[in-house]
Amino acid sequence: MDLTPYQLNEYLFDAFPATAKAGYRCTDLGEGWAEAHWTYDASALRPGGYIPGPTMFTLADLALWFAIFTKIGIEGMAVTTDMTMHFLRPAMGGNLVGRAELTKVGRRLAHGKIDLWIDGDAERLVAFGSGAYAIPA
Amino acid sequence: MDLTPYQLNEYLFDAFPATAKAGYRCTDLGEGWAEAHWTYDASALRPGGYIPGPTMFTLADLALWFAIFTKIGIEGMAVTTDMTMHFLRPAMGGNLVGRAELTKVGRRLAHGKIDLWIDGDAERLVAFGSGAYAIPA
Amino acid sequence: MDLTPYQLNEYLFDAFPATAKAGYRCTDLGEGWAEAHWTYDASALRPGGYIPGPTMFTLADLALWFAIFTKIGIEGMAVTTDMTMHFLRPAMGGNLVGRAELTKVGRRLAHGKIDLWIDGDAERLVAFGSGAYAIPA
Amino acid sequence: MDLTPYQLNEYLFDAFPATAKAGYRCTDLGEGWAEAHWTYDASALRPGGYIPGPTMFTLADLALWFAIFTKIGIEGMAVTTDMTMHFLRPAMGGNLVGRAELTKVGRRLAHGKIDLWIDGDAERLVAFGSGAYAIPA
Repeated sequence: MDLTPYQLNEYLFDAFPATAKAGYRCTDLGEGWAEAHWTYDASALRPGGYIPGPTMFTLADLALWFAIFTKIGIEGMAVTTDMTMHFLRPAMGGNLVGRAELTKVGRRLAHGKIDLWIDGDAERLVAFGSGAYAIPA
Repeated sequence: MDLTPYQLNEYLFDAFPATAKAGYRCTDLGEGWAEAHWTYDASALRPGGYIPGPTMFTLADLALWFAIFTKIGIEGMAVTTDMTMHFLRPAMGGNLVGRAELTKVGRRLAHGKIDLWIDGDAERLVAFGSGAYAIPA
Repeated sequence: MDLTPYQLNEYLFDAFPATAKAGYRCTDLGEGWAEAHWTYDASALRPGGYIPGPTMFTLADLALWFAIFTKIGIEGMAVTTDMTMHFLRPAMGGNLVGRAELTKVGRRLAHGKIDLWIDGDAERLVAFGSGAYAIPA
Repeated sequence: MDLTPYQLNEYLFDAFPATAKAGYRCTDLGEGWAEAHWTYDASALRPGGYIPGPTMFTLADLALWFAIFTKIGIEGMAVTTDMTMHFLRPAMGGNLVGRAELTKVGRRLAHGKIDLWIDGDAERLVAFGSGAYAIPA
């Protein structure tokens, strides 16, 4: 695997510009895993000043997509088939980090799980996700 | 319950302006259910020209929030505790509709399920969600 | 589709005898849906006298399997890829009913949702599930 | 925390005898985690000779219950509110192991995740779950 975060972010800007502009980036990756960040944006919070659930979903979904790319290459047509999010505690006051790890890459489906935390506080997950992507034939 | 979609949309613009501006609206509601729309935006699609998974999550999450408000009033601090999305088929070519129905409103948690389809094609769900919100004490 | 509940129950006894003996049965079915029952068994309750979560999962999983058979015929090697259960209220005092409806049957995956209630009280769901089965090639 | 697997298994036999007799046991535990086993039983397999999904759900649910007890003591009335299972590959040929880790223990809800594998092959998860229990007031 020769992918770099830089390549994934270039691809993201190209294929998914609205998401890229909203502050999502790949920050690190390796065989079977990827880390992504959402840059804190005080204008995009939910009541209470919390990072919204959909922002956390977006980061989880994206981190898992990136993790799959480390196994099958950049494949924009890999699409989520299911995703479950558990929201554990208020997410606030900093950049959001999501780290996806693949649990299985099959021929048709790739499964993984994603931990989310506020940068600098990795010990206290703010959310946790698991899901699967369908891999194009 | 005297809530109207107009009131919920005013609240949305106030409490969650980025989401309101991105084209999400309450369109209908009744005791224990609510319908919401995302206005099709060709600049916000994912590779393939599909409506992205996070957009569907956002609409599902929002429709469920609105449905809960029909039971407990507008309560911005009701927060999602978990949400599962199943993505069934490509969502494309029109406004996205989400209809949430509550399955249980308890003292601490409210559960519901959400059907999503492209406006005009309600027979073919594009996604399906289920989840729960924690209700503030 | 010529399947009958009787045929499915015969198959269940043959393929899955421990489950059949534990009191699970198909009770009704039609194109794209199936209903199954678990016969109340006071010796198999959890603390509080409630029907256990795993019993509800088993019934949901089975009802969805049966619903898929109404579309593709009896196919024992269809296996669950994911299932989410929401437990809404205590399940007690009667037979458990599960009704699965397919939301999508694709070439590789079949998705559906399942309502569970105590027989005679269909208005008050005790649990709700959604999930997918992988269909053998 | 002074809990031992022995105490949990005694409790299981007392409170949940059918489950105990079906071969589920706590095998290890520590602050915030627990491991449980299901003893392989060739008479309880699904078509294909695989360990059935409901058996995996049961072990996941139980391991998470035990993990919660390491934080709040044995509390039979802690009940599952939601659980998502991802089934990754066929589970066969040995005892099933489930290891639950808590991700958050709140006042009202405790969340955790559960890895499942065949004894001796921990590197290849057969299933993965995440869920929450409601803690009695």
